[in-house]
Amino acid sequence: MKVLITGFDPFGGETVNPAYEAVKLLPEVICGAEIIKLEIPTVYTKSGAAVEKAIKEHQPDVVLCIGQAGGRSSIQIEKVAINLAEARIKDNEGNQPMDVALHEDGENAYFTNLPCKAVVNELRKNNIPAHISYTAGTFVCNDVMYHLLYLISKKYNKVRGGFIHVPYALEQVIDKPAGTPAMSLETIAKGLELAIKAIIENDEDISIHMGTIM
Amino acid sequence: MKVLITGFDPFGGETVNPAYEAVKLLPEVICGAEIIKLEIPTVYTKSGAAVEKAIKEHQPDVVLCIGQAGGRSSIQIEKVAINLAEARIKDNEGNQPMDVALHEDGENAYFTNLPCKAVVNELRKNNIPAHISYTAGTFVCNDVMYHLLYLISKKYNKVRGGFIHVPYALEQVIDKPAGTPAMSLETIAKGLELAIKAIIENDEDISIHMGTIM
Amino acid sequence: MKVLITGFDPFGGETVNPAYEAVKLLPEVICGAEIIKLEIPTVYTKSGAAVEKAIKEHQPDVVLCIGQAGGRSSIQIEKVAINLAEARIKDNEGNQPMDVALHEDGENAYFTNLPCKAVVNELRKNNIPAHISYTAGTFVCNDVMYHLLYLISKKYNKVRGGFIHVPYALEQVIDKPAGTPAMSLETIAKGLELAIKAIIENDEDISIHMGTIM
Amino acid sequence: MKVLITGFDPFGGETVNPAYEAVKLLPEVICGAEIIKLEIPTVYTKSGAAVEKAIKEHQPDVVLCIGQAGGRSSIQIEKVAINLAEARIKDNEGNQPMDVALHEDGENAYFTNLPCKAVVNELRKNNIPAHISYTAGTFVCNDVMYHLLYLISKKYNKVRGGFIHVPYALEQVIDKPAGTPAMSLETIAKGLELAIKAIIENDEDISIHMGTIM
Repeated sequence: MKVLITGFDPFGGETVNPAYEAVKLLPEVICGAEIIKLEIPTVYTKSGAAVEKAIKEHQPDVVLCIGQAGGRSSIQIEKVAINLAEARIKDNEGNQPMDVALHEDGENAYFTNLPCKAVVNELRKNNIPAHISYTAGTFVCNDVMYHLLYLISKKYNKVRGGFIHVPYALEQVIDKPAGTPAMSLETIAKGLELAIKAIIENDEDISIHMGTIM
Repeated sequence: MKVLITGFDPFGGETVNPAYEAVKLLPEVICGAEIIKLEIPTVYTKSGAAVEKAIKEHQPDVVLCIGQAGGRSSIQIEKVAINLAEARIKDNEGNQPMDVALHEDGENAYFTNLPCKAVVNELRKNNIPAHISYTAGTFVCNDVMYHLLYLISKKYNKVRGGFIHVPYALEQVIDKPAGTPAMSLETIAKGLELAIKAIIENDEDISIHMGTIM
Repeated sequence: MKVLITGFDPFGGETVNPAYEAVKLLPEVICGAEIIKLEIPTVYTKSGAAVEKAIKEHQPDVVLCIGQAGGRSSIQIEKVAINLAEARIKDNEGNQPMDVALHEDGENAYFTNLPCKAVVNELRKNNIPAHISYTAGTFVCNDVMYHLLYLISKKYNKVRGGFIHVPYALEQVIDKPAGTPAMSLETIAKGLELAIKAIIENDEDISIHMGTIM
Repeated sequence: MKVLITGFDPFGGETVNPAYEAVKLLPEVICGAEIIKLEIPTVYTKSGAAVEKAIKEHQPDVVLCIGQAGGRSSIQIEKVAINLAEARIKDNEGNQPMDVALHEDGENAYFTNLPCKAVVNELRKNNIPAHISYTAGTFVCNDVMYHLLYLISKKYNKVRGGFIHVPYALEQVIDKPAGTPAMSLETIAKGLELAIKAIIENDEDISIHMGTIM
């Protein structure tokens, strides 16, 4: 089995991105699966294209994209990506799309086919705070997740894929306001390893009540 | 012009729901439009059915559903509803659906056709904190919003409709942990009135960058 | 009975200070007491001197100083002021003291002689979120509170005095990050009026468990 | 050189206390100083008595007490302890003092004689989020810190002593609401080790602007 795991380069004024920093700490093999690591640019369209190119090249069974969600305090697997680009800040090449669809011929949204609850459950069993998130935002994280699920829907039906958001690394919040949550890169990497384990071990998701009440 | 505006009854152990409490404070006419107020139950399917019944009866031009988002500090108009019911707690009749679609023949998600940015802009100009939200959650709020947009898509193409989440009312946080955000019912009602004004005045949305960077 | 109530001018890049804006909204008489309003500068030493001058001039029975605590979501009466000046930012005249005592001959700290619990209780009964705070910080708010209590201790034993911190006004958070708490000036003013009422009506504090568990 | 470091047992419904769990992970020797570890009870007066007994027995040069501050996201060294017991919840033996002094013949407050800024600076240099706090609350943490500084003031002038608050451990927030901050025990222990290093290496504090603006 092959798992392609990607992480973005830094954006929004940060000098590191905990996503790829944590990916780099992962072992080469998890539960017998080969782990292929890829850094992708925080640029609309290009990040998705980089993922697509790696899918063609490596033919992975699982594709897991990782991104930074500054301000969140737990590791969060995304349930859904929406067909919308709306950029509050410019991406790393200066693009700032406003209220446009990502794919004219795509669905309004795609749900991930990863076992979200099994992932959350595995992390929690190992004392790592984790939740399902129901929004990947409207920036490049949502863009790459949407593009991945669009590809799976259109061309790569046997691939399982999705997206995980991780908190700021500790070193990123040293000069931020008191109260800004963070997680050590070691804990983030441990969480990602457990997530991959849960994905490999669970073809179907488990039955536990999660969800939000908002 | 007719505007149907709904608010839920209390749920989750609360004795009031700021949504319908604020709706009750609205004037009978806003910018020349007749305002029809409706309290709906915090019950999966039944809330949507109540909205559908009122659409048939009143034939409104605009349908705006209001719900409580405890923990948020601003008034937030929802951009999208997803085809998913996932209940962390039971609704007011004991239903607790898990990971199921709301409509088998519905899209994965529907975007609102309300001018979200014009609404946010109008509130901010009047010093009321407001944002676009990209998740209405997975409980009855998302359910009723999804059902409304499903109806618009399938049967009522000329209706404009959507959902606004409001913070806890001040009285709800008196015994909650320090730091729990809240807003006075007067401010919430003022915000809803301004939202309706912006909806009436803007057939098309305005062009401002919003979005999130997560 | 006379109540002197003060509020600071804006600081830290803000264009308004909710403290004095709310003070301006207070009636001229509360529970039969004359209300004397005074704006004081956000400048170390000068703010305290302004309060001292007003005490000499008006001979108030109660002195209540109001300040902004950006980031807090409730109205908070301060229990204690400490003999320390430590400025993270410059005050409005460029002073930035570091780790120095406010009064060489003062106590390490002074407790307010205002009935804190009665104040909190009165606000909560009227649905306004309120707490006792056990730190007024280390900037000019703590400076003026310490100086006031120092004066009461040394010279004005019959005066009752203290400090109340208030949240950002709604208009201050329009462009701040989502989640920044705020309160309307009307609610803040209502809270201050209720606080003065509770101070006038309670010579002794009431017996309720409050405190923190940190 | 000898360093006595204490941590509380669990309280408030928790099954672990990150304070003593982290203390247990510390090495036996730090920068040449012998580290003496002591678990103390979360009980008013008894915790202070336990510290006093250990001071007599071990004659340490430095006494550092560690406590849990659930809800804080960084490691925080306390600047000041106040002469007040005010218990929102019962301690582990059912005591719930209300608005009383800890020592009738004590100062209103005592400042720590530890180099707070050097501690914060050392942690930040090593990418561990840290701040000075200006309130240790009103529960047993403040009680034991106050009693320690009272003892230093009255009898043990050569001892240096103070208090550090630490976040929840990761395992404590698994079932708490999303957004509750936490830190791994490994990071907390690393932070405490660095704090001890900074205390040993700095007889005088360093000159950096810290403080709050509230």
